[in-house]
Amino acid sequence: MNKIYPDKIYLDNAASTKPSAEAMEVFADVSLNAYANASSLHNMGMAAEKHIKDAKNIFAKTLGVQPKNILFTSGGTESNNMAVTGTAIANCRRGKHIISTAVEHPSVLETCKHLASIGYEVDFLSVDKNGSIDIDEFCRKLRDDTVLVSVMHVNNEVGTVQPVHLLKDIMRKKSPNALLHTDAVQSFGKEPIDINAWGIDLLSASSHKIYSPKGTGLLYIGDKVKIEPLLYGGAHQGGLRSGTENTAGTAAFACSVSCLAQESEKHHAYVSELNTALRRGILSRLDRVQINSPSDASPYICNVSFFGVRSEILLHSLESKGIYVSSGSACSSHKSGKSHVLAAMGLNYDGIDSALRFSFSHENTLDEIAYTVDTLAEQVSLIRKYTRK
Amino acid sequence: MNKIYPDKIYLDNAASTKPSAEAMEVFADVSLNAYANASSLHNMGMAAEKHIKDAKNIFAKTLGVQPKNILFTSGGTESNNMAVTGTAIANCRRGKHIISTAVEHPSVLETCKHLASIGYEVDFLSVDKNGSIDIDEFCRKLRDDTVLVSVMHVNNEVGTVQPVHLLKDIMRKKSPNALLHTDAVQSFGKEPIDINAWGIDLLSASSHKIYSPKGTGLLYIGDKVKIEPLLYGGAHQGGLRSGTENTAGTAAFACSVSCLAQESEKHHAYVSELNTALRRGILSRLDRVQINSPSDASPYICNVSFFGVRSEILLHSLESKGIYVSSGSACSSHKSGKSHVLAAMGLNYDGIDSALRFSFSHENTLDEIAYTVDTLAEQVSLIRKYTRK
Repeated sequence: MNKIYPDKIYLDNAASTKPSAEAMEVFADVSLNAYANASSLHNMGMAAEKHIKDAKNIFAKTLGVQPKNILFTSGGTESNNMAVTGTAIANCRRGKHIISTAVEHPSVLETCKHLASIGYEVDFLSVDKNGSIDIDEFCRKLRDDTVLVSVMHVNNEVGTVQPVHLLKDIMRKKSPNALLHTDAVQSFGKEPIDINAWGIDLLSASSHKIYSPKGTGLLYIGDKVKIEPLLYGGAHQGGLRSGTENTAGTAAFACSVSCLAQESEKHHAYVSELNTALRRGILSRLDRVQINSPSDASPYICNVSFFGVRSEILLHSLESKGIYVSSGSACSSHKSGKSHVLAAMGLNYDGIDSALRFSFSHENTLDEIAYTVDTLAEQVSLIRKYTRK
Repeated sequence: MNKIYPDKIYLDNAASTKPSAEAMEVFADVSLNAYANASSLHNMGMAAEKHIKDAKNIFAKTLGVQPKNILFTSGGTESNNMAVTGTAIANCRRGKHIISTAVEHPSVLETCKHLASIGYEVDFLSVDKNGSIDIDEFCRKLRDDTVLVSVMHVNNEVGTVQPVHLLKDIMRKKSPNALLHTDAVQSFGKEPIDINAWGIDLLSASSHKIYSPKGTGLLYIGDKVKIEPLLYGGAHQGGLRSGTENTAGTAAFACSVSCLAQESEKHHAYVSELNTALRRGILSRLDRVQINSPSDASPYICNVSFFGVRSEILLHSLESKGIYVSSGSACSSHKSGKSHVLAAMGLNYDGIDSALRFSFSHENTLDEIAYTVDTLAEQVSLIRKYTRK
């Protein structure tokens, strides 16, 4: 029988994406032809610096902000750490209260916990069964001395879109000096974001989630934001982030966002089809399953529990058939224990222990989804049979 | 007349190097064929993780240490910040005294100054006219409550090799718990380093100084080192440096160091020839000049003052002839003012204001040096004539 599917069906795009040919070409071109240090005073240095400036312009245009408000970092984790710690420290005289959520990415969650360990007070908002925060609880928790509200845009495990657009209006009334940060690592280039209309003060994004090489991140920092650097040194990027600029990585990241900006609606609609096909396929072909991602989640992520099947076993079983997904029960191989996101959503042990995350790119196909559904039906049934659950 | 020199004579290799074809190939290969997140549990994630492990093995072998002691960062600045701040914070209950030098790279200097602003006490050792610290002063400054000694290996502006190998013996006697950090960004892959014999506890290095793409750094952390992370999150790299590993950047960096390890003695001897040719040429062809780099400096760097000639003017004048160097009077275009290194070495205003840094790679040629000397003789004479100094 002829093989009709590709070797790999990669449905782990929320973990990392394959860099596009365009982004790789830009990376190589800038690395080899603009290799000088962007801080060097000669024209080779200026040529390198121009790539950084051009990238800032592209991000600024995409986000509807000024280029001076774009800071480049080494990735989403650094952006999130800087947003949270940098503003907490810079504004500590005004207050030490931070609001975040129970379902943030570890780079926000653990940073908040670290701040809590050195004298800050952090409230983590709870979420409902859809993974969504409650605006009433947010109102109640907001205080005069709240300096930072950090609420992610799209959740990385289940795709829930938080009502980030509703927060600033409430903050303006109740805590006008508090800053609003959103971790947009899973939404940037995929979901609509309106920094100005939503009143966002800080926004984090990452290169390798949108088809660029790893190693570059972005932090939007609004004009009025008081923030301390994480890294000290040669005063690059206005003194806010010292360290030789990653010229090639930044240019490749900008290339990716340019490409996506033109196609984002089309991709969104297409990925929605993939997502719907997976959901329908799973629900129609398998029993004892539960789609954990709400129906209005970002279509790029679909989290599903296959009751009675340990997620790690199913993950490896799918892998043996060429399908690559993530276990929903751990954010990474470094963290043991159960998903804090699914736990916050109220899933029971079996629901958490059997959850897989499927995450899509516009390069996946409906054929791949059909094969994945077939394989799931077959493997889940086999695993249930042999583990007698 | 036929053009006999290349378009560009790049003598700014201490600022950044051109990535090698080998490193670029590894970067592209890993980016496109091992693009999964190294934290993903499936075999694509494990393939990515293997690149990180292989890289750690290569660095460990090169440095004569264990792979578990290698931490990957986003670059030299992050490595230096983490070494200094991470140990200062982790060991603050034992003491808050730090010793560094007046000639460190800004990523150590400014980090120390920041620590001084939050309650630490920092002694910056002075240097002699060769840019070298004084061991007697070091002995005097070392205290019971010294937690960290951070002394760079090769100075980035003048190439002075500090007597890092002499420090630990003194520390063992006078302050046995103090940690020894060295910023080896300018020496790693170029000068001999013996972590074990010298008793180094922490060592920083950077990818783009040794023919790899920008965006990756390394921090060696000895077994007994108590250190706090700078970045919190998914607990990557044993919790010491959260953030998705830059698989391709790390693999390319390892590729560069492998290539260099085989050739470092040959390159060192060759670059010494280039350096000597430049020194001799300048001294024999130009008057009112001074070689600021001591004769036993790393051959990769040669700092020269051309009295009566503002360095920026000469830099741009050389650039118009295709020669790219750095102004010795500023570590980067972001820092105004005079070189803190040359000032610490006791140079007067004119000496500092007229200093250029020539920094070599093994890809430079003696022909390039000859052309550079010819051009210097011509341009310095012209500038002096027209500026009437």
